[in-house]
Amino acid sequence: MPIHHFHPTSYSNVMGGRPAVLTVAPGDTVITQTLDAAGTDHEGAQRAPRGNPMTGPFAIEGAEPGDALLVTVERMTPTRATGWTYSPVSAQVVEPRMVAELAKSTRFEWAIDAEAGTVALIGASERVSGWRFPLMPMLGCFGVAPERGQAISTATSGPYGGNMDYRAFGPGATIAFPVSEPGGLLFLGDGHACQGDGEIVGTGIETSFEVEFTLNLRKKASGQWPRCETATDVMTLASGRPLDQALQSATSEMIRWLVEDLGIDAVEASHLLGQMVRYDVANVFNPAYCVACRLPKNEITRGLSLLR
Amino acid sequence: MPIHHFHPTSYSNVMGGRPAVLTVAPGDTVITQTLDAAGTDHEGAQRAPRGNPMTGPFAIEGAEPGDALLVTVERMTPTRATGWTYSPVSAQVVEPRMVAELAKSTRFEWAIDAEAGTVALIGASERVSGWRFPLMPMLGCFGVAPERGQAISTATSGPYGGNMDYRAFGPGATIAFPVSEPGGLLFLGDGHACQGDGEIVGTGIETSFEVEFTLNLRKKASGQWPRCETATDVMTLASGRPLDQALQSATSEMIRWLVEDLGIDAVEASHLLGQMVRYDVANVFNPAYCVACRLPKNEITRGLSLLR
Amino acid sequence: MPIHHFHPTSYSNVMGGRPAVLTVAPGDTVITQTLDAAGTDHEGAQRAPRGNPMTGPFAIEGAEPGDALLVTVERMTPTRATGWTYSPVSAQVVEPRMVAELAKSTRFEWAIDAEAGTVALIGASERVSGWRFPLMPMLGCFGVAPERGQAISTATSGPYGGNMDYRAFGPGATIAFPVSEPGGLLFLGDGHACQGDGEIVGTGIETSFEVEFTLNLRKKASGQWPRCETATDVMTLASGRPLDQALQSATSEMIRWLVEDLGIDAVEASHLLGQMVRYDVANVFNPAYCVACRLPKNEITRGLSLLR
Amino acid sequence: MPIHHFHPTSYSNVMGGRPAVLTVAPGDTVITQTLDAAGTDHEGAQRAPRGNPMTGPFAIEGAEPGDALLVTVERMTPTRATGWTYSPVSAQVVEPRMVAELAKSTRFEWAIDAEAGTVALIGASERVSGWRFPLMPMLGCFGVAPERGQAISTATSGPYGGNMDYRAFGPGATIAFPVSEPGGLLFLGDGHACQGDGEIVGTGIETSFEVEFTLNLRKKASGQWPRCETATDVMTLASGRPLDQALQSATSEMIRWLVEDLGIDAVEASHLLGQMVRYDVANVFNPAYCVACRLPKNEITRGLSLLR
Repeated sequence: MPIHHFHPTSYSNVMGGRPAVLTVAPGDTVITQTLDAAGTDHEGAQRAPRGNPMTGPFAIEGAEPGDALLVTVERMTPTRATGWTYSPVSAQVVEPRMVAELAKSTRFEWAIDAEAGTVALIGASERVSGWRFPLMPMLGCFGVAPERGQAISTATSGPYGGNMDYRAFGPGATIAFPVSEPGGLLFLGDGHACQGDGEIVGTGIETSFEVEFTLNLRKKASGQWPRCETATDVMTLASGRPLDQALQSATSEMIRWLVEDLGIDAVEASHLLGQMVRYDVANVFNPAYCVACRLPKNEITRGLSLLR
Repeated sequence: MPIHHFHPTSYSNVMGGRPAVLTVAPGDTVITQTLDAAGTDHEGAQRAPRGNPMTGPFAIEGAEPGDALLVTVERMTPTRATGWTYSPVSAQVVEPRMVAELAKSTRFEWAIDAEAGTVALIGASERVSGWRFPLMPMLGCFGVAPERGQAISTATSGPYGGNMDYRAFGPGATIAFPVSEPGGLLFLGDGHACQGDGEIVGTGIETSFEVEFTLNLRKKASGQWPRCETATDVMTLASGRPLDQALQSATSEMIRWLVEDLGIDAVEASHLLGQMVRYDVANVFNPAYCVACRLPKNEITRGLSLLR
Repeated sequence: MPIHHFHPTSYSNVMGGRPAVLTVAPGDTVITQTLDAAGTDHEGAQRAPRGNPMTGPFAIEGAEPGDALLVTVERMTPTRATGWTYSPVSAQVVEPRMVAELAKSTRFEWAIDAEAGTVALIGASERVSGWRFPLMPMLGCFGVAPERGQAISTATSGPYGGNMDYRAFGPGATIAFPVSEPGGLLFLGDGHACQGDGEIVGTGIETSFEVEFTLNLRKKASGQWPRCETATDVMTLASGRPLDQALQSATSEMIRWLVEDLGIDAVEASHLLGQMVRYDVANVFNPAYCVACRLPKNEITRGLSLLR
Repeated sequence: MPIHHFHPTSYSNVMGGRPAVLTVAPGDTVITQTLDAAGTDHEGAQRAPRGNPMTGPFAIEGAEPGDALLVTVERMTPTRATGWTYSPVSAQVVEPRMVAELAKSTRFEWAIDAEAGTVALIGASERVSGWRFPLMPMLGCFGVAPERGQAISTATSGPYGGNMDYRAFGPGATIAFPVSEPGGLLFLGDGHACQGDGEIVGTGIETSFEVEFTLNLRKKASGQWPRCETATDVMTLASGRPLDQALQSATSEMIRWLVEDLGIDAVEASHLLGQMVRYDVANVFNPAYCVACRLPKNEITRGLSLLR
């Protein structure tokens, strides 16, 4: 399959309202670059306003409303040796009475060692400088043009994707987005070198990336929210507030998926979900929170598939 | 250490307001039996009103308000070969517009094979009868007498524990509860043979158990919510609604624990949490939802300990 | 009808788990005294631990589970010339990022002029000392013994009533509580000389009162939550978190009331509610928030009645 | 002051991303027409897709980011003699277990008698046909172009206004919106002949209107959310989910307004809010709920003004 190299020269801080920068065929692969969340590139130069500037959008031939655009993240290579976070945790994730005790949020630097597969905190207090965690790249913000001609800030998320900040959206993951505009129009950016559940400090380890991804098309796909498949799990993702609402939409989407693809009803699907479901809090920081409803791949769930 | 065998003859559907049925020394082990959530014993006989009747309470010598009572779940052996669930999923975990499509919740039976370590759905539709999942016993409801002389229904949960329905509360887990009454007064019951995140069908696989547990005491312990340690993780647990509130209290409790035991501040603790935290939705069904804030045991978190 | 004078000598910081201090016949009136929320009486003496110590409970002859106990607040006379509040507003009612700017909550004093019908801020900053508002007495916390033998802290509320902190619960209001224990067992206290919606500073103007109230009984009443009637409105009250949940329960209770008493169905009831409903945020401070679903008394709603 | 007559020929289902249809000077008045929420005009003809099609946008000379655009609703005259609602109430405002009992939502017709000032239900069941309520016109959806070049569906709301569905936004109300684009760019539509709190049936009484409004400009205005002044009250409006979040933002905005215009601090502002605040649930139906924080006009609050 062809590989397209696309070098972006402009970026978008909204999703939607912008023509395709490149159109590819189903099955094609694209290699491109993303800025960090503050608009900074691999040399530390500011290339776009802060707030998750996006590369793209990329169109896929033949995509129409009612289809699903599928993106497989093949590779994410950091394009510089540092990233940054904020600290402490957001006021949104502690008890109201603890908020007053929290220090003002400030920026911290991390060293990224792509070869060793680690990230390490640098230049912080002596007690914690050197803390080292695994490098686990992921796309914080990506998705397609939203419905009704909207152009929506990359701060938030919805059925079209957007700023979901889910740590499982890294290499090996395939994500299906419901198409609203011809071509689908995939935007992507806001890469993180690492991130815990919830993005509770308001950032992952933010840095610039080279991203390689493959686009596919599923005609007449019924998903209402993003669906995902990794080596080990299948997930549905939904956004809203409070977390309860995001969980409700993600669970509903999983039930619809199980019912459609396995030919069972909601009572039967519930036997599986009731005993085996896992919920991941993707983000509990952005204007819309995001929750994943996850099931392990096993004899039952192998009947679910995005790519067939 | 001594092992006490306690055979219950009465049960309580509230936590608090009831004298100890047995007092043990720190380090002692107790072997006892629990009814299922509907009040049914190993022979299928109704021994107490439905709604999580509790065995206990068990007092530990020397426990006073301000201390922590620690319970290590040593073993949970199902005392019968069947359990039950309800289906479909609760109206609380799907989109409002999907609720009207859900069938009325009805009871289903499961076969428990303790030797094989499995549970299997029986007597349901042909398409799903025989679905088999791992046996993963856990205590749905347990905790100590609440503060201020309250007696609170075993339907709900709070800082004293209660109906948390967290699937990680099985054999190998040690849980610390803040003590409010002399002796602490541990109640326990509502065992599940298996349960997914959130207890979203309103039940785990409900059955009766023989439970072996060890009680310990930590004097002048500072926890405000339950803390837990397993072979692989440390967690804090908190209750509330919506999920956001439970998550806030659990995160705050974890920050307090990290700050106290590691001698760091909230900014430093946030570097760890921001990149490594995991959230588990323990239950999203009961009057109070319950969320776990979890960290893996590693070089940093091994400084946290319940038992030292 | 007889008037009973009852002078309390002990108080309860939980609702439930306590025998009646006085039993009266339906239609009887009681005159008694309440402490302020901190346990202080008319002379400023501490008579009970802080946290809404209750006077009572009062039993009504013939009340059984499934009935409703009705209390009409006839009169509330402040028994001292001062009250107190806290300031600033709670962290729970401002944006997370504003919490850090809020000063620590401290106590302020108010002069109560029962004759003039006013309350006035005293001893605060020059800019605001002398601010004067109408005296509008109300009961912050009252209700009956909860179900299942529970004894629940007067900090919170539920179907049995409790710390609802609704400003419309003053003289002239009749409130119906669902009975769970023989006699019903009415507790009352936590009087406020004034309070805005939501009790957003965590207090009303807290003071001690002489309260005159009449008890009535409605056999086989179907309410699941408190219902209320004033000179101008009918309301249902419910508790929960977030506000959405309290609103849902209050609306459901109003629909049940309309359907039962007017002989209409939920679609028909919705025509009225959709155009005429008013929601009051009773409290957005306590462990359980409280919302009132309110309708004006008019040709349609006059078919609703508590006392007939 | 000049009066501009503007007859729309096209409409927008998003707010933003569209040039001005008319530019006026501060103080000018505009008379125009709005479609109903389904895109229907005074003759019952479909003129735009359903979902709150907007008339406008109208620019005001000199408006720049950081200013406030003020709109005074002078008059709303229904342009036809009928309106419509849906029934029953939304699944979002009842307890989850009641949702399954609700009938499918269907459309109902109302007669509008502008002279008598009433609306009356027609063609429903015999028990309720003829129910008559006061005509209380209001704008369901209006506001300015949002920040960052966004174009956002008229289904939802935010700091720029949008689908707030607040029943107090009728004739006599002046609303200030924070300006993000040059000219401010006011969109308006979705008029209701009547509506209760919360828009709980998902509609007001939807109909087409002639609307007369005056535009004014306040340079360097500090509001972050809509502020409003009526004959009797001042309000701040904010959007979010759950209701708690909308209430938090509205309260924060009111505190900022009090602090700025009255020269007091947040503790002093809290004395007023704690005793006198009223909260209105504008809508509890749309993707973002909307809450008003309201204070009566009195000696203290007369220092607040939008137009000075």
